[in-house]
Amino acid sequence: MKTIIPGDLVLLYDKGDDRRYFYQIPPNLVPNFKYNTTNGYLYVMEIVEKGYQSILTSSKGVEYAVLKPSMYEYILYGMKRHTQIIYPKDSAFIAFRMGIRQGARIAEIGTGSGSMTLVLSQFVGKSGHISTYEARPEFVELSRKNVLLFDRSLCERIVFKNRDVIAEGIDERELDNIFIDIREPQEVLPLVHSALAYGGSAGMVVATVNQLSMIIDAMNASGFREPEITELLIRDYKFVSERLRPKDSMVGHTAYIATAKKL
Amino acid sequence: MKTIIPGDLVLLYDKGDDRRYFYQIPPNLVPNFKYNTTNGYLYVMEIVEKGYQSILTSSKGVEYAVLKPSMYEYILYGMKRHTQIIYPKDSAFIAFRMGIRQGARIAEIGTGSGSMTLVLSQFVGKSGHISTYEARPEFVELSRKNVLLFDRSLCERIVFKNRDVIAEGIDERELDNIFIDIREPQEVLPLVHSALAYGGSAGMVVATVNQLSMIIDAMNASGFREPEITELLIRDYKFVSERLRPKDSMVGHTAYIATAKKL
Amino acid sequence: MKTIIPGDLVLLYDKGDDRRYFYQIPPNLVPNFKYNTTNGYLYVMEIVEKGYQSILTSSKGVEYAVLKPSMYEYILYGMKRHTQIIYPKDSAFIAFRMGIRQGARIAEIGTGSGSMTLVLSQFVGKSGHISTYEARPEFVELSRKNVLLFDRSLCERIVFKNRDVIAEGIDERELDNIFIDIREPQEVLPLVHSALAYGGSAGMVVATVNQLSMIIDAMNASGFREPEITELLIRDYKFVSERLRPKDSMVGHTAYIATAKKL
Amino acid sequence: MKTIIPGDLVLLYDKGDDRRYFYQIPPNLVPNFKYNTTNGYLYVMEIVEKGYQSILTSSKGVEYAVLKPSMYEYILYGMKRHTQIIYPKDSAFIAFRMGIRQGARIAEIGTGSGSMTLVLSQFVGKSGHISTYEARPEFVELSRKNVLLFDRSLCERIVFKNRDVIAEGIDERELDNIFIDIREPQEVLPLVHSALAYGGSAGMVVATVNQLSMIIDAMNASGFREPEITELLIRDYKFVSERLRPKDSMVGHTAYIATAKKL
Repeated sequence: MKTIIPGDLVLLYDKGDDRRYFYQIPPNLVPNFKYNTTNGYLYVMEIVEKGYQSILTSSKGVEYAVLKPSMYEYILYGMKRHTQIIYPKDSAFIAFRMGIRQGARIAEIGTGSGSMTLVLSQFVGKSGHISTYEARPEFVELSRKNVLLFDRSLCERIVFKNRDVIAEGIDERELDNIFIDIREPQEVLPLVHSALAYGGSAGMVVATVNQLSMIIDAMNASGFREPEITELLIRDYKFVSERLRPKDSMVGHTAYIATAKKL
Repeated sequence: MKTIIPGDLVLLYDKGDDRRYFYQIPPNLVPNFKYNTTNGYLYVMEIVEKGYQSILTSSKGVEYAVLKPSMYEYILYGMKRHTQIIYPKDSAFIAFRMGIRQGARIAEIGTGSGSMTLVLSQFVGKSGHISTYEARPEFVELSRKNVLLFDRSLCERIVFKNRDVIAEGIDERELDNIFIDIREPQEVLPLVHSALAYGGSAGMVVATVNQLSMIIDAMNASGFREPEITELLIRDYKFVSERLRPKDSMVGHTAYIATAKKL
Repeated sequence: MKTIIPGDLVLLYDKGDDRRYFYQIPPNLVPNFKYNTTNGYLYVMEIVEKGYQSILTSSKGVEYAVLKPSMYEYILYGMKRHTQIIYPKDSAFIAFRMGIRQGARIAEIGTGSGSMTLVLSQFVGKSGHISTYEARPEFVELSRKNVLLFDRSLCERIVFKNRDVIAEGIDERELDNIFIDIREPQEVLPLVHSALAYGGSAGMVVATVNQLSMIIDAMNASGFREPEITELLIRDYKFVSERLRPKDSMVGHTAYIATAKKL
Repeated sequence: MKTIIPGDLVLLYDKGDDRRYFYQIPPNLVPNFKYNTTNGYLYVMEIVEKGYQSILTSSKGVEYAVLKPSMYEYILYGMKRHTQIIYPKDSAFIAFRMGIRQGARIAEIGTGSGSMTLVLSQFVGKSGHISTYEARPEFVELSRKNVLLFDRSLCERIVFKNRDVIAEGIDERELDNIFIDIREPQEVLPLVHSALAYGGSAGMVVATVNQLSMIIDAMNASGFREPEITELLIRDYKFVSERLRPKDSMVGHTAYIATAKKL
């Protein structure tokens, strides 16, 4: 896990000011390339030579940790996103709640920036497969790039499809799980029900309560069973042992989570 | 994914009353074995022959779905537990927050009933490895059985160790991640810091605010960086489209989640 | 505040087992009346003679505190209610949020069991006035009894009206504040707007999100300004200093609170 | 309620941009005084002549509502405060939870900017009495001014005392309720217990969990009964009927609330 090759993404952590930098090593790396930080520069060649999990010192004498970013860090701080992402507090829970297992064959409707595609790809594992559908061509490109940059090996288990599922449907049948993140999830629920294997699950994120109502009706009409609607609230605490208390502000809302099964 | 072999776990879902039954097919299966439900019985041999994702009809004419339980369902409803488990709302988030990736070499301190061991095993994937430590021999046995029953292939990536880490330490070095679930996490934090690779992360669940304070001090003393303390609140909604509102009661507290990195 | 007269309500607090008893001293009190508890009996005459804020000893030697119940205790534990009450976490906030001041002339639409009538009566004070409307005659009776039992002097500032406001309207004009607690608050919003003085406020409790949507539309249509929708979540903690943490369960939902002004 | 006299506070609400202005009419009012807003000016004499609950038009033709501010509005938006105030979501609940009734004789330890003094003064009513203690002379002055500006009649029921209660104690005995808002509430709990009448209640706000632990121990040591610790979370919703959902951010923490009784 330690070798860095040109094209790889590194997370540089400034040990002086706790700042984080996400940086892709140029694929066409030449010896005197420099990477500039607010505390001096680093030689890129030296980053590559030292590898992940090492420490470098900048031209101004500040120590930098060279790290392989986690999916969590990448999604929250490093990834290019032109859409609302699904927050980590929600994404891992949804995949877990849907019961996505290693080796599963699944679909995602609404790739967006690819943040959930990444999470799903970890859950299905090396032997799994994801077909991810996106109606807007520019997001197909963006999400593919985002996944590639994080870990190019993940792309072997993902097929990116540029298609409006509402108009043109889903190719696959007998899928284990289907995740939905589009504006009107209720419109694809009959399609999703058909594409699922018996016992398979659907999961979706929903922004408003009005949509939740429509989704409930659509789930009932499509024959889904064991429906659940839930939301997660995350509360951070100040890291001070002798004056311990929650932080002053918190996120008030990200999304409602709806799941159900074909039974 | 459809074949059932004797010894496997099945989830029988009663389509009449929505009840769920977890049932291990006897390893020594003989033809006239019956499985009794509140709505008649099923022939076990028939369950095996039909396989997962099929439908059977009981002696009383009620339909039963034969399903492979998800990890979520197994942990919440099917698993034998003699300890407080880590709730699904917390477990998947912790693993994700810790940045556990496929192929990672990790440790778990405090196996308990094995619910988190299961979650961790999915995150590290087939190429990953978990050493899980537990001081109480009966829980070593229980957790091993629990993992085996859910999916025996997972045991290839897990080593169960009967050891009190506070007294005897951790065998491994240069670990990617370490998860802690013992009564006094603060006592193992120096050990955990030593056993982690540079850039590696620790995560833990904590029941009380008093312990949080001690953990903050111990993290600072051990040299951990990027510490975070958080908690997740889960709120379920009634599944009624025209009178949509949260359920009357919710879980008030499961655990605080603390994470940090060796940097 | 210490004198008890026959007909008054007392709160008897058992110092042995922390149990609470709400008891109305019989108006036709005779010397040998006894009040039975699980720990022996008390002579009622003795309760009256000692007065509020005193201690009695039961026939079994257990100490009982004789207290005047607070409005909070009465509403939560002592009052007869055949409807969903407005919880204390919500009721005081609503009255405060609506800006109800001493001396205000206000109306309540939907008296129910009278729990909010009590709260409103404290906010308007001795010089204030409440007209409270209730369509169901049995609740007019119940709420009047409930208020009387708590503090008969409050009834001087309250007029109980048996009327369906949707069908028959509100008598008053130029009201300072109007509180609404009926099934379909949106139906009375135009009436409420007319009955309010310029600058006056309306407040209401709402059970479902579907109704919230209708109320938003009705508020806009009626010309209300400065609308706000909010909810309060209450979380209790275990009272143990060395293992401090929230209680295991909490209330998931009581009501959404909507307020607005005529401007 | 409509007459404005010089020295009174008015709330000017700009009907064009929903902005609010709190303004004290100068006690020495002369005819050509102007009040400037971002949308032109108003003649102050005209404000006084029209009175509360009227509409004026500014020199730029924008309508302004002239209102008497509510206590809620004054505390949140209009009052001068040099300390952390107690938020309305907490203040009304505390007073209600403590069971403060009209006519009660109470004390407040830690006047601060006087926001809770205002709330308490409404709960005790015209016939009630508050002694409020504050160690820092500048806050005694500030809080008195703040109460006076909101409603000078309230001052008849309040005595402001400049005293450090920890060092010098409380004058009153047999009090019905005592509210505490100082840095170290645990230090005054024995004093508070002595000053309360039998059956009386204490309430306090607490910033950190560490202090909560100390308060629990101090309550037990002082002999308090029926202790409760709670917190309120407030969640606001967007006022849009067809896309209804909570606002993106919310307050993560204000204070823990602790109450108990002398029994």
